[in-house]
Amino acid sequence: MANELFDPLYGADRVAGVLDGGAWIAALLEVELALTNAATDAGIVDEHDADAVEPAFGAIRVGPAELGAEAVEGGNPVIPLVRRLRAAVEKVRDGAGRAVHPGATSQDVMDTALVLLTRRAGSRVVEDLRGSADAAAALATAHRDTPCAARTLGQQALPTTFGAVAASWCSGLDRAAARLAGLLGELPVQFGGAAGTLAASYPHGPAVADGLAARLGLAPQGVPWHTERTRIGELAGALGVAAGACAKPATDVVLLSGTELGEVSEAAPGDSSSMPHKRNPIAAVTARASARRAPGLVATLLASMEQEHQRAAGAWHAEWVTLADLLRASSGAASRLRACLEGLAVHPDAMARNLALAAGDHDAPHHAGDLVDRVLAGRVR
Amino acid sequence: MANELFDPLYGADRVAGVLDGGAWIAALLEVELALTNAATDAGIVDEHDADAVEPAFGAIRVGPAELGAEAVEGGNPVIPLVRRLRAAVEKVRDGAGRAVHPGATSQDVMDTALVLLTRRAGSRVVEDLRGSADAAAALATAHRDTPCAARTLGQQALPTTFGAVAASWCSGLDRAAARLAGLLGELPVQFGGAAGTLAASYPHGPAVADGLAARLGLAPQGVPWHTERTRIGELAGALGVAAGACAKPATDVVLLSGTELGEVSEAAPGDSSSMPHKRNPIAAVTARASARRAPGLVATLLASMEQEHQRAAGAWHAEWVTLADLLRASSGAASRLRACLEGLAVHPDAMARNLALAAGDHDAPHHAGDLVDRVLAGRVR
Amino acid sequence: MANELFDPLYGADRVAGVLDGGAWIAALLEVELALTNAATDAGIVDEHDADAVEPAFGAIRVGPAELGAEAVEGGNPVIPLVRRLRAAVEKVRDGAGRAVHPGATSQDVMDTALVLLTRRAGSRVVEDLRGSADAAAALATAHRDTPCAARTLGQQALPTTFGAVAASWCSGLDRAAARLAGLLGELPVQFGGAAGTLAASYPHGPAVADGLAARLGLAPQGVPWHTERTRIGELAGALGVAAGACAKPATDVVLLSGTELGEVSEAAPGDSSSMPHKRNPIAAVTARASARRAPGLVATLLASMEQEHQRAAGAWHAEWVTLADLLRASSGAASRLRACLEGLAVHPDAMARNLALAAGDHDAPHHAGDLVDRVLAGRVR
Amino acid sequence: MANELFDPLYGADRVAGVLDGGAWIAALLEVELALTNAATDAGIVDEHDADAVEPAFGAIRVGPAELGAEAVEGGNPVIPLVRRLRAAVEKVRDGAGRAVHPGATSQDVMDTALVLLTRRAGSRVVEDLRGSADAAAALATAHRDTPCAARTLGQQALPTTFGAVAASWCSGLDRAAARLAGLLGELPVQFGGAAGTLAASYPHGPAVADGLAARLGLAPQGVPWHTERTRIGELAGALGVAAGACAKPATDVVLLSGTELGEVSEAAPGDSSSMPHKRNPIAAVTARASARRAPGLVATLLASMEQEHQRAAGAWHAEWVTLADLLRASSGAASRLRACLEGLAVHPDAMARNLALAAGDHDAPHHAGDLVDRVLAGRVR
Repeated sequence: MANELFDPLYGADRVAGVLDGGAWIAALLEVELALTNAATDAGIVDEHDADAVEPAFGAIRVGPAELGAEAVEGGNPVIPLVRRLRAAVEKVRDGAGRAVHPGATSQDVMDTALVLLTRRAGSRVVEDLRGSADAAAALATAHRDTPCAARTLGQQALPTTFGAVAASWCSGLDRAAARLAGLLGELPVQFGGAAGTLAASYPHGPAVADGLAARLGLAPQGVPWHTERTRIGELAGALGVAAGACAKPATDVVLLSGTELGEVSEAAPGDSSSMPHKRNPIAAVTARASARRAPGLVATLLASMEQEHQRAAGAWHAEWVTLADLLRASSGAASRLRACLEGLAVHPDAMARNLALAAGDHDAPHHAGDLVDRVLAGRVR
Repeated sequence: MANELFDPLYGADRVAGVLDGGAWIAALLEVELALTNAATDAGIVDEHDADAVEPAFGAIRVGPAELGAEAVEGGNPVIPLVRRLRAAVEKVRDGAGRAVHPGATSQDVMDTALVLLTRRAGSRVVEDLRGSADAAAALATAHRDTPCAARTLGQQALPTTFGAVAASWCSGLDRAAARLAGLLGELPVQFGGAAGTLAASYPHGPAVADGLAARLGLAPQGVPWHTERTRIGELAGALGVAAGACAKPATDVVLLSGTELGEVSEAAPGDSSSMPHKRNPIAAVTARASARRAPGLVATLLASMEQEHQRAAGAWHAEWVTLADLLRASSGAASRLRACLEGLAVHPDAMARNLALAAGDHDAPHHAGDLVDRVLAGRVR
Repeated sequence: MANELFDPLYGADRVAGVLDGGAWIAALLEVELALTNAATDAGIVDEHDADAVEPAFGAIRVGPAELGAEAVEGGNPVIPLVRRLRAAVEKVRDGAGRAVHPGATSQDVMDTALVLLTRRAGSRVVEDLRGSADAAAALATAHRDTPCAARTLGQQALPTTFGAVAASWCSGLDRAAARLAGLLGELPVQFGGAAGTLAASYPHGPAVADGLAARLGLAPQGVPWHTERTRIGELAGALGVAAGACAKPATDVVLLSGTELGEVSEAAPGDSSSMPHKRNPIAAVTARASARRAPGLVATLLASMEQEHQRAAGAWHAEWVTLADLLRASSGAASRLRACLEGLAVHPDAMARNLALAAGDHDAPHHAGDLVDRVLAGRVR
Repeated sequence: MANELFDPLYGADRVAGVLDGGAWIAALLEVELALTNAATDAGIVDEHDADAVEPAFGAIRVGPAELGAEAVEGGNPVIPLVRRLRAAVEKVRDGAGRAVHPGATSQDVMDTALVLLTRRAGSRVVEDLRGSADAAAALATAHRDTPCAARTLGQQALPTTFGAVAASWCSGLDRAAARLAGLLGELPVQFGGAAGTLAASYPHGPAVADGLAARLGLAPQGVPWHTERTRIGELAGALGVAAGACAKPATDVVLLSGTELGEVSEAAPGDSSSMPHKRNPIAAVTARASARRAPGLVATLLASMEQEHQRAAGAWHAEWVTLADLLRASSGAASRLRACLEGLAVHPDAMARNLALAAGDHDAPHHAGDLVDRVLAGRVR
């Protein structure tokens, strides 16, 4: 989770706080409390027992290191947390421990908490994708008619405009943001009980599940999805696409910033202790670095869809840190790209100078402006 | 492409014919012909020139090996194919060569052909995902109330029903199919010209692009997406999810078929030359094998979204074989799983015998039947 | 880096402390100090200046969060650390700041520190691989002649002995350990200066590089390898193999521990809050979870070998956290597997009972014992 | 396997012929014949029976498509091939069918054949890596003192020489070649029988295995490695490193060939149908494309090391096509890079012109020449 030394430069500090150990524990407690309340609404927890729960929960003081050590035995932190919660509630009211974790299995709470963390971190990714897209759109507008060389396979091809280049960035970022936002909005609660059959809450299981979803602002689950992980796979794909959509403009900025091209430069280019003449496009460089981490993490999550029986022996556990790392990678790519694009300086003179080397004696790029208009007109927010 | 020795056992023969060299050449020709016609409609190709094109195209006889050898110099097969086409057309009518490939760049034709092939192969994947889901639904209906052990971390937990297990398979397969079908339906044409600006067809470029899309039954492009590869990334993700959705039931079948569990068996289990007592669940085994190939291929496609400038020097080229292989892997997983599930024999007696070992003295799984009903009622086709 | 909540259950706490922010800063300082000393030995740093360095270094107090924030501008933590070091040294002696970071570039120090951290964390992975192999060897010795079913494609095939199964685990673990240990021992220092040419230390660069290697106990570099990353790729491969060598026995243990097989059980199986009859093989489960993280991370590092020019704009930066995560994943797999195997209980009665179901009426497995003997005799330490 | 349309441009045609369906069948037959002979030497096959085998083998005529169709039932092509072989041998001599496949299981033959194919294809990869390294060495020698800009993060840093750049390429390619060649030389035979215990050939199993290895020129196996896949993982890693070592110079060539830099150009640059002023570095472009395919394939093979029990239900089967594809990707990268480097034209004037933009007023790069000398002197063949 939090990596104090490297998170800021990777841009992962944007989401570090909503994915760290403390955030996990808070989310686990939030789910357990909502579950008790939803189960009370459904009539399977006694109201007097339930009344004992909230104050006891509020008094729980356990840190990530302590809970992490306790989590080794059972392989997840919910088991020791529930033990603590029940003990705390019993101190408030004898027998009220049964109001804790009613009808649930560890995975119900882990998955629902993971969904909460994902939605929180993911919404920041969406925000930064949109911020990046807005910055690209502003560049497209400002440079709608600024000629520059289109380059194919590294060679100058024909003229385009920088506006058309930036409009294409905008288009990909908008698309990635829309898809990710859509998936985040569909993420459901998980509630299935030990065998995924809602046995322990029968026949009120569906009502508890829907109540839990409503209380947490999550989508209903339809049926439990303990080892039916298409949603996790889809989410992984969308985060991978988000990273890729950021890698494209970041790579362009790195190349266009090169000494010989010099067509753009970052507002706050990185220093180099020994070479003051260098103006490193550090935000773009670190956006690329973050983006490059995503595909391998997506592959891990897709491979982990192979979850056997009713709870996988390893593939499920592998998701927690991998999904968090993927959120960090995609978030880093988006936030660093946003910093890059929001301050990007464009140098039309260098573009003209370069064009004159090869591509400049071809058609004037008035057509490129039309593309800019089409992209900007088609933006949906 | 076609791998005659291994495709059948991996299940990839289902799509081999629509992804092989001949299919590629046919698709390239189909795109070029539609392009000439769309450009004629838009008034940028002379009708008399256009009339010379179709007969000349029909006479083109070039095989994958020949065209493949010619493709080395320029790095893609469109360049030599256009050369051949223009020569053939010129023989029909002097000067009509200009009616070939009007306003286009190689990538326009490669990308559009890739989209055509993907839609064809992808629709078979969807078909087999749906066939697998239907088979799972039938199992769920037939065994709605057949008790069996739910297993978590490899251990018997509590009872469930085999219907609930199969309903969960159905749920994931339906979801994967719907998502993939949706993306296939949105795949657009590609038409941008050398610099991605529609310069050579100005101001008729958008009309040509839309006409090309209409003629090929593809979605309109909005703007060219030469190096804006979010759609390829999304498609990769959906194919990876499809493979994962198949891996889950295939893995369950392998485990449930084990000698000691013996709860299911394939209709045509594989033979073993030396051990006639073995009944290997070969369809499930090879479905898993195919599915395992997918995540790495998805990662390659996501990493290749980093496409610089207006045509990437390598990342674009890497897509062709990788996307085809991913289609083959996902198709193989779906078709082999379908064969597995459509003929799956279920052994309630073995389920009961196993339940008696540990989980059987718990609640009867009437609640599991309700889940089956919810899944089946919620199926959308 | 350190993930207090999840590291213990993934087994990553074994290396967390040698890979966290504090360990990075300590390693960076260690490299800078050794560099000053090696450069002094080579005569390119004044001895009086050098005398000012060590006390100044010892007084540096900067935490990961602080240095991390300062690292954003230049994209790596060496730049602000060198600034701090020079300021501190200047306070001790005017002009002595030139004794800090002599002839070096940031990457020299980052790469060398990464090598130091890798060697430290990697040696713990080796230790746990060897511990796991020893445990497997002990099981092989103890159960050299204990019959059990060999299973192919999930089906009982013919008899083997549990000793032969464990000997095969031992064989893979030994091989993975030997390869990783070999690579760790070859990891070299990095020293090239700003352009990788040793210009700033000419003609003493090779002497400084070799002196630095000697002081840090690292291998000499031959020539700088700023963007020649075969060593990183090889290391990634060996760590991936280590994880895979752990995944194999961990998977076997999970399957053999299943309720219906019951052939082995962990000494301290994980509890399940709601189902006391369950004995979850949690160490094996979490070993698998850790191992599953490795392949995607290896892919990221291999893809990042594409490092352009003399310092890559992103691919280099992506290595830091990815290699650390890979070390954590492999270490977790090895340490959790070791815990699993060192306490594994074997149940010959269950093996015999299962054998009777199918494979038992075949040849007695005296030949399997010979294999055990061959493996154990061939072990090299 | 063979992909006639795309193999040539990816450079995979170098190994296509040794990895296709026909090559597989030939290798399977080669292994079966050597096995019969080794078993005869060991005394477990009757000499008269053995005499009937070779002529019968030579008469086997079965193509990939036919055998592929027969392979579906059992999940691998050895099962139907052995059936055919036994029938053919029985026609020569009654009862001699027992001389076919003595003491073996399908995996013994599949694995050993895979090793043979790998060694053949892999040796071509090594050859092309060495050819590429030699070409880089020649460039390093020729341009030992040709000044050019070192570039870090895309910016000119300080001067280096082109010789130093090419020497670094050489260094990585040599290292990758040496490692791969070493592993290819260690690839062992596989012979374990149905349960991996050498039961059916007891007590002559080790002698048969060693005889088989000697006849095929492979390393001895020690013990069977049916589900102990460290060797496959190591090989995957080395092939991934080989691809990465090629991606580095290919990427440099693409960038240095760019219109604005113009420092190198390919001897036979690719044409562009519409833009005759372009000189696309197609060999480098397609080398990169091939190299980009490797990391995901390596991840698949590493993930497939998780092979349960004594024959994996899917993970083993996934290796066949994945390892072949990885060989093709690495081979393509090496062969296309070799074509690129062997004909590379270097433009010292452009280097000087670029240097003058920024880095040129720094130290002269005489030190870079020393690095060239060190690399060339240290080359080991």
